[in-house]
Amino acid sequence: MEGSMAIESEVFKSGMRRLAAGVSIITTTGLDGPRGLTATAVCSVSVAPPTLLCCVNRGSSAHDTIRAAGILAINFLAERDQDLATRFSGAETRESRFALGSWFTLATGSPILETALASFDCRVVSTIDGASHSIFFAEVIAVRTGAAVGPLLYFDGAYGGFAATETLPSGR
Amino acid sequence: MEGSMAIESEVFKSGMRRLAAGVSIITTTGLDGPRGLTATAVCSVSVAPPTLLCCVNRGSSAHDTIRAAGILAINFLAERDQDLATRFSGAETRESRFALGSWFTLATGSPILETALASFDCRVVSTIDGASHSIFFAEVIAVRTGAAVGPLLYFDGAYGGFAATETLPSGR
Repeated sequence: MEGSMAIESEVFKSGMRRLAAGVSIITTTGLDGPRGLTATAVCSVSVAPPTLLCCVNRGSSAHDTIRAAGILAINFLAERDQDLATRFSGAETRESRFALGSWFTLATGSPILETALASFDCRVVSTIDGASHSIFFAEVIAVRTGAAVGPLLYFDGAYGGFAATETLPSGR
Repeated sequence: MEGSMAIESEVFKSGMRRLAAGVSIITTTGLDGPRGLTATAVCSVSVAPPTLLCCVNRGSSAHDTIRAAGILAINFLAERDQDLATRFSGAETRESRFALGSWFTLATGSPILETALASFDCRVVSTIDGASHSIFFAEVIAVRTGAAVGPLLYFDGAYGGFAATETLPSGR
């Protein structure tokens, strides 16, 4: 392994486009009001204590507010909320993002989306500073489960939905 | 926020079932041969250096080998490889898992799946010990992109595929 060089950024990004992921809106709130961004880098870390992690670009408008406030909520988007995903990842001003959709709060004050499949209201318990992203470890203090509809997915630069498949016969 | 209690495990797990995710097989190899497991907790962390993270259950057969060997590969599965996902998450013995599918190696010796959408051959650069899972930060030293077919997804306890949607008109 010694001397192995990291591969080039473009090769990495081209491969990573093939990671399909559910789409979330991560929100927070601070002295300057609510902030949010569309994200796909969200994982479950442990059940006890219930902990998620999310990777947030340090350049995003929500990043510094999450760091300062120490709270965030992760809202798993339904397929029908694709326009929210677009709005929270686009050039919309920070304030106008929340004009679309119906939002409320649970424990921390971070915005919870009425139409989300599930929402996790969290406090940040630790943070890792990456080169371009911060990784927030977030303990879940309230969960809200919404309607049982299909999830919004992102794959190879496009949004889409989930199509359940039949189990394949074993032995191809 | 003071005094907020973490929520119960069942509530957390029930909400987390609604996180749709692409399915990967994480592999490694050590003195005791190749090991692998099906996983959905995989994220991109940074482009420079190209880094992924994955959360691996400490009880999985591959976990200790990854820790000892310091290498792993992440193979993003195609929808048509659902039977591999089942095999690498089931009761199959450790050795017989690799009898299905076509495997080769790149830089580290960790098994790379011929039919994967993309494979990332990595060295572990740091590890966080969680309560039930280890979080491996893995620097990518080789990428292999496979056929451009649909990804395998997991949502609400079922496997499925990706169905690209038309862009919704803005303003509902």
